[in-house]
Amino acid sequence: MIKMNQTEPRTLAGFMELLPNEQILFEQMKQTIENTYQKFGFLPLDTPIIELSEVLLAKAGGETEKQIYRFNKGETDLSLRFDLTVPLSKYVAKNYGNLSFPFRRYQVGKVYRGERTQKGRFREFYQCDIDVIGDGELDIINDAELPSIIYTIFKELGFDNFTICINNRKILNGLFESLGQKENSVEILRVIDKIDKIGKEAVIEELTKLKVEKTEIETIMNFIAIDGTSDEKIEKLENLGIENEVYAKGVEELKQVVKNIRLFGVPDNNFKVDLTIARGLDYYTGTVYETFLNDYREVGSVCSGGRYENLAEYYTDKKLPGVGISIGLTRLFYKLNELNLIKAEQKSVSQVLIIPMLEDLEQPIKLATELRKLGVNTEVYLNDKKLKAKFKYADKLKIPYVVVIGENEIATNMANIKNMETGEEKKVKLEASEICKNV
Amino acid sequence: MIKMNQTEPRTLAGFMELLPNEQILFEQMKQTIENTYQKFGFLPLDTPIIELSEVLLAKAGGETEKQIYRFNKGETDLSLRFDLTVPLSKYVAKNYGNLSFPFRRYQVGKVYRGERTQKGRFREFYQCDIDVIGDGELDIINDAELPSIIYTIFKELGFDNFTICINNRKILNGLFESLGQKENSVEILRVIDKIDKIGKEAVIEELTKLKVEKTEIETIMNFIAIDGTSDEKIEKLENLGIENEVYAKGVEELKQVVKNIRLFGVPDNNFKVDLTIARGLDYYTGTVYETFLNDYREVGSVCSGGRYENLAEYYTDKKLPGVGISIGLTRLFYKLNELNLIKAEQKSVSQVLIIPMLEDLEQPIKLATELRKLGVNTEVYLNDKKLKAKFKYADKLKIPYVVVIGENEIATNMANIKNMETGEEKKVKLEASEICKNV
Repeated sequence: MIKMNQTEPRTLAGFMELLPNEQILFEQMKQTIENTYQKFGFLPLDTPIIELSEVLLAKAGGETEKQIYRFNKGETDLSLRFDLTVPLSKYVAKNYGNLSFPFRRYQVGKVYRGERTQKGRFREFYQCDIDVIGDGELDIINDAELPSIIYTIFKELGFDNFTICINNRKILNGLFESLGQKENSVEILRVIDKIDKIGKEAVIEELTKLKVEKTEIETIMNFIAIDGTSDEKIEKLENLGIENEVYAKGVEELKQVVKNIRLFGVPDNNFKVDLTIARGLDYYTGTVYETFLNDYREVGSVCSGGRYENLAEYYTDKKLPGVGISIGLTRLFYKLNELNLIKAEQKSVSQVLIIPMLEDLEQPIKLATELRKLGVNTEVYLNDKKLKAKFKYADKLKIPYVVVIGENEIATNMANIKNMETGEEKKVKLEASEICKNV
Repeated sequence: MIKMNQTEPRTLAGFMELLPNEQILFEQMKQTIENTYQKFGFLPLDTPIIELSEVLLAKAGGETEKQIYRFNKGETDLSLRFDLTVPLSKYVAKNYGNLSFPFRRYQVGKVYRGERTQKGRFREFYQCDIDVIGDGELDIINDAELPSIIYTIFKELGFDNFTICINNRKILNGLFESLGQKENSVEILRVIDKIDKIGKEAVIEELTKLKVEKTEIETIMNFIAIDGTSDEKIEKLENLGIENEVYAKGVEELKQVVKNIRLFGVPDNNFKVDLTIARGLDYYTGTVYETFLNDYREVGSVCSGGRYENLAEYYTDKKLPGVGISIGLTRLFYKLNELNLIKAEQKSVSQVLIIPMLEDLEQPIKLATELRKLGVNTEVYLNDKKLKAKFKYADKLKIPYVVVIGENEIATNMANIKNMETGEEKKVKLEASEICKNV
């Protein structure tokens, strides 16, 4: 009941706010991603959430600009960041002289987009990005390292059956260029993408209507018919008879990436060349990635990214090619949680709850301090409640072990460690090192 | 040089944006604080940065409201959070039925205040908060646990000479109540606070002008003359002859807190009763804390907090007493960094940089993968540069160990680990486990 002088406590639609048990799972996913980025030596970055609109929107336009949280504070026109890439561009352009290249950075932070609110869509959400930025140039081998980082993360998150799909934007661009159909490429792609629905013949018919010539249609149909293993696809691309520099470069890059991905230890089970992905994104100019959980395709791509020719052209003349990936953590968490797929090692923060059942708290508190020094997260239940209520607290917080300390435990210097999941109790010496061994 | 179609890449004044080497230090401080909060079993919380103005400003007013980042998105009146306490109040009121009490939560996040920009003042800054919220009541012993968490954090951050100052709001409130000077308390305090500047006699004179009676002035002067150890101060407070319930309760609480702080392992060197602190904050109703680095008093309090009677009265009728502390991390980092006082264990993300000097990268990449599995953050220098440039990169990133792998290293299965700080090299077998042992 809200009284006259009270406000109803509510959270904005499209803004995730979790209960503690779920927040613990979220934090573990975030930590896994961050730890993996660090394992590969990426440097942390933390840019402001608010930027000058003029700076943040130097490039933006259209759909994106409409979604921006933009406002004035005093005379200043401000916006909330809508991704982590634009702030990175600004940062690298601004600090160019103080950075070492290749500049490898990770950033995990909230971004804001005023999308139409609907289930599973968020207006405030975490992005977890890494990018490798070269000064002038950046070897193609970097494009092969990133999939190995995606691989490591999703293995760590407990998944086996996922596929990192890889393509190269230059292939399709070069194909259309070679056919003299650069201008019509969007329309042609729209038709091609309907093939599963309308069938091969109907696609040919529609392409004919678009005034694509017969030999060109043949090439296109041969292209979209390409199948097989990643290596077979590359071989077929090479033998398609397309003479175009951009196309050839794209195929060569894709070949390099596939070869090197294996060096980085990604099994063939977990990646494949997929010539259909990331067709729509103009931002990328070379390698592109999308990642799918094969048993849950409906989740969509869980990690996407690619290569771009020039990170910061809106801020600087320096040519800064890069390659990066991004995980939309908030949406990913929401979906996985909904599907009950989050395999977290720990369901609680505390590993041990010490329940004192005596006046003098000296021993229980000392024990907790010792346990913490041994690296065990430990809470002492400090409030005066019945034993039953204290156990209920441990249960609700999913704390795995409870140690009750009363007069008897002090007198005998022995205590029971109760495993809250199995109900088993084990009697041990009332010493931190002994308890530590048993939790 | 910025061209016509380019925007100058710049960051708003009052918004901290660090270079990688500093960001690494910042992240370690943040991690130390978070880890310590977790060690004591506090649950993570992550609330939105944007809230409905009506909800966020249910209580606010005056100075705070002027500093708020407030704006409309469509028809909705929104504000950015200016602390983590109001969102906590909302959260607890909203989720009351789903929380276990005492509810112990930590939150580390950015908050926003449009303060006048000046050196060392930030408009976007991290707060690192913990609070313990009781349902209806909360034992005083919780007030003694928090200083032990402050103590643990600043020890972990490498400080020894710091003091957690403790007071209780009820003491001064009760004193003024007993003197019948509740209404004049602000003015009387203003006079008292000048004692170091103007001297005892002048204070008495000014109090007389305020029409405080002679016996009352005597009590006040006795009160502010209280000195000695924490225990002596408490004894003197008890013997001041003030008969007032609130005063007596305050002294008793303070006594309890001091007694129990010792149980929690805080040495007498690192805390003291200080009757002068937190006089201005109306928010707190009992115990109050401020923490000072004694060699750097100019930094101000590095961790403050206290006890409040009712967390969420603007949202709910439930009585929710609590006690909490907050570290203003951004400002603290800024000040410590300026004073060169940040004692970070690691100056780089990567522990090892592998420098391949051959065509075939299989071995270097495999080695890196193995090292990562052993928990060693490892980067492979992937771009084609001269050896000197690669070493310079390791140097600038402060990576402590470098392993060069060329044809010779592969042939002999031996490699040198170079310690970048000392310049020493050590020849070991070219195996992850061997390298791991030596870094």
